[in-house]
Amino acid sequence: MGQNLSDHPLAIPDNRLQILINQIKDYQITHGSLIKLLPGVNNNEESPVQSVPVGVAVFPTPWPRELFERATEIQQAFNELYIRISEDPKWLGDVLVDLRRSDSFTQKLWRIWEAVSEEQKGEEGRTNLGIFRSDYMLHDRRGDGQELDIRQVEFNTFSVAGGTHGNIVGNMHRHLCRTGAFDAENTTAGKTNQCKLENLPINDTIKGIVAGLKAAHEAYGPARSSDVSATAMLMVVQPHNINICDERPLEYALWDQSPSIPCYRVVFSDEVLERTSLTADKLLLYHPPHTAQPVEISVVYFRAGYDMHEYTDAGIKARYLLDRSRAIICPSILSHLATFKKVQQALCVPGAVERFLPDEKARLVRATFSAILPMDEESRLGQYARELTQDSVRAIDYILKPSLEGGGHNVYGIDIVPFLAKVHKRRWAQYILMECIRPPKIDNILLTGRGVYQGPVVSELGMFGTCLWMSDVGDGVEILRNECAGWSFKTKAADVDEMSVVKGYGCFDCPYLTV
Amino acid sequence: MGQNLSDHPLAIPDNRLQILINQIKDYQITHGSLIKLLPGVNNNEESPVQSVPVGVAVFPTPWPRELFERATEIQQAFNELYIRISEDPKWLGDVLVDLRRSDSFTQKLWRIWEAVSEEQKGEEGRTNLGIFRSDYMLHDRRGDGQELDIRQVEFNTFSVAGGTHGNIVGNMHRHLCRTGAFDAENTTAGKTNQCKLENLPINDTIKGIVAGLKAAHEAYGPARSSDVSATAMLMVVQPHNINICDERPLEYALWDQSPSIPCYRVVFSDEVLERTSLTADKLLLYHPPHTAQPVEISVVYFRAGYDMHEYTDAGIKARYLLDRSRAIICPSILSHLATFKKVQQALCVPGAVERFLPDEKARLVRATFSAILPMDEESRLGQYARELTQDSVRAIDYILKPSLEGGGHNVYGIDIVPFLAKVHKRRWAQYILMECIRPPKIDNILLTGRGVYQGPVVSELGMFGTCLWMSDVGDGVEILRNECAGWSFKTKAADVDEMSVVKGYGCFDCPYLTV
Repeated sequence: MGQNLSDHPLAIPDNRLQILINQIKDYQITHGSLIKLLPGVNNNEESPVQSVPVGVAVFPTPWPRELFERATEIQQAFNELYIRISEDPKWLGDVLVDLRRSDSFTQKLWRIWEAVSEEQKGEEGRTNLGIFRSDYMLHDRRGDGQELDIRQVEFNTFSVAGGTHGNIVGNMHRHLCRTGAFDAENTTAGKTNQCKLENLPINDTIKGIVAGLKAAHEAYGPARSSDVSATAMLMVVQPHNINICDERPLEYALWDQSPSIPCYRVVFSDEVLERTSLTADKLLLYHPPHTAQPVEISVVYFRAGYDMHEYTDAGIKARYLLDRSRAIICPSILSHLATFKKVQQALCVPGAVERFLPDEKARLVRATFSAILPMDEESRLGQYARELTQDSVRAIDYILKPSLEGGGHNVYGIDIVPFLAKVHKRRWAQYILMECIRPPKIDNILLTGRGVYQGPVVSELGMFGTCLWMSDVGDGVEILRNECAGWSFKTKAADVDEMSVVKGYGCFDCPYLTV
Repeated sequence: MGQNLSDHPLAIPDNRLQILINQIKDYQITHGSLIKLLPGVNNNEESPVQSVPVGVAVFPTPWPRELFERATEIQQAFNELYIRISEDPKWLGDVLVDLRRSDSFTQKLWRIWEAVSEEQKGEEGRTNLGIFRSDYMLHDRRGDGQELDIRQVEFNTFSVAGGTHGNIVGNMHRHLCRTGAFDAENTTAGKTNQCKLENLPINDTIKGIVAGLKAAHEAYGPARSSDVSATAMLMVVQPHNINICDERPLEYALWDQSPSIPCYRVVFSDEVLERTSLTADKLLLYHPPHTAQPVEISVVYFRAGYDMHEYTDAGIKARYLLDRSRAIICPSILSHLATFKKVQQALCVPGAVERFLPDEKARLVRATFSAILPMDEESRLGQYARELTQDSVRAIDYILKPSLEGGGHNVYGIDIVPFLAKVHKRRWAQYILMECIRPPKIDNILLTGRGVYQGPVVSELGMFGTCLWMSDVGDGVEILRNECAGWSFKTKAADVDEMSVVKGYGCFDCPYLTV
């Protein structure tokens, strides 16, 4: 039975009503269409959607202006580096050789790439979109706060998040600053504080990411299939996502473009298989639930498909279907693989960055690297790393990370020796060993998902980049667009290892730029 | 002890930290800086602020386009009517004569006005700001849906709410419409539905209200006190407000103007007394907590002070202090009193509207009136109304309302006879009797604060107006600005009498304009 609203000109089938209600809830919680629940006032009712604010820092956390600007300035070089890595399957294949043997996730992605690549052999150049984020911490080289520098924590190419939250929280700190909320004259500590707006950089990351998506949509051009008249973007999302406030505003901003860029969400993987199809020419069609008329997809923007467990048979099928289409995929499988920690380690090897970038750019990029060692059995560095991780004193300065992408699953300092004792030596090559970054600690107050924290904190600056390039053009790559697209800034308690905001540790923040 | 953050360039006194944290939470819930709480995923943590979406209609509810436009077109006439009522203390005093005798709230407000008016005698013209909302329902004149008209429910002059929520929910319905979320081809009901964007009017109420506030701020001009260099607006708010998502965006939008208009919140009444003062010239100064330097207040925007219980001794003192200042008060006490239901009833008397407006405008305004009867002992109409309320059959077509302002406390139809039996006849004059509006019923689905409702609904259109005028100029009033400033649209279950959104009955909605 359809939603049969007597006399109402609108109605939809029952099975779409719950979807519509979820869309409404998401719109509301991302636009402040809310009633506060106050204990004792109105919190006795059962309520259909609850939400809590994302973790935030109360005061913006200091960060040297020069090092903020440096991270901005080298973003284009990093974009270019990862574009070129994504277009060098030979190098990437060699770097991932151990993982392709021992890790089923890498195997699955690599096989999808091989199948797609075989199928596309000889085809004209494909356009690719990258939305990247390079994460940095401050590194206190001498341990006395006198020689600070930035060190890259990781480089993300897949489903990079935090752009929207970072934007909103940056706006929040700037708003509070202009109201005087951070100022105090003659505090009992005897100090006069004044927060100046010019010390809080403007955050325009939503605009930056959307500009990247829009450029790709425009590069795709008008619909090519004779059956359809319109193009649209597809955002591939996870089911039961609690972080929709980071995704939805990008989607709304696309619809808000002039002319409007339709952006439809599909859940990975079932809904992808159910609602998309390929034409004979491998054009990607999306079949919306509200009309029999399909639309042609210009850009596939992945915000799902980064977790091993998503690659069931259906997941592999869905990813393969999207990747072999003529839509612009963000990111391509090779760009996805380029985010694996193993690649970050391989780039530390002398000559590796220089393979992709001219010397001057390579030098700037390399200056942000921490020492990262492989954990393989064969190489000299691998043997050195294996030795190091058996010595509980020397291991203190290192982090053991899985070679794959994403945060979490890291093993820190003193935990490394006992952890490896439980892992078969054959599997050690699935890790890399990274020298700890030693950030200066400064006090702040954090409103985390786990309560209020006051004490020493450390921050991480995430610099966003968007880029568009054509592969296989003549003897290489043609970079069509390469931009720095904004930033996010996260802060956590200094004694907590995890920066995850969703798990309630990390907090969004804004740098307070100091001399 | 101040917030002594070691090495951090910022810190504020302890007693301001909780205020800052509340500001942060409000910013977050009004900007979608949130994490959804999903049962079984992340809802096991204790959380510092929870919130739920405001009630909304799933589908926009039909409303005739012509009647939407009529409400828009007559708003300026209504603004003018209430400007002129606010400047006619003689007429207003006569209308409220019973209440000034029997109702302590009216007494208190009237005495504040008398004191202020005595003090200001002979002073040059004062500028006044009005932010009004006229509420309408559809009236089905013949009971068969063939002859629909709009009928005014009430006219609000004090702390009119819902502009922000209405704006956001209007945007939401337009967004959902453009994505096809309301469309269905060949539903099992066999109908094809398509929601067209042109049937959903654009809602720009936040902009409209802010433009009104800004015009007043600019009319005030630069600071006049020699001690201060800056002017700012003051928003007077209630403590423990759960509806901050309706207020805060107006404040943020003021700060976002170029140049920025500072807008500070003060809680009525304690914080008003603590943080504001008058100079010898009766300029209103606000003393922010973050600096020793006061600012001069251009506009006082009341979003508190409408409830009887707020007028304690401190409340009276606070209201008096603000009203006798040279700041532009929104609304003035007489504008406030003009919103009392007794005034609405008095305007129904032939000749009353015509006292204030030329005949053509008066006719348009009067066409929206329902019959409203006084309940006094003396007048012929009052005697008729008293008879009527003793007859349970005839009483069914009426609503008994307190003569004061605001929603709630109404007594409907069959409840009137038993209700009055418990009220002393001497106090009957504190009520007015209004003929019921008979709206057509149409089905819809509502996501209310009390759960999902599907069934017949009725809607209420609230038309916003802002106006600026100078009193006591020559022999009358000079209207400086008179605008329609947007709308809100609320929908509730047809069998529920209350429209209150905060109590979980009413839902924000968008009219679906029909031919």
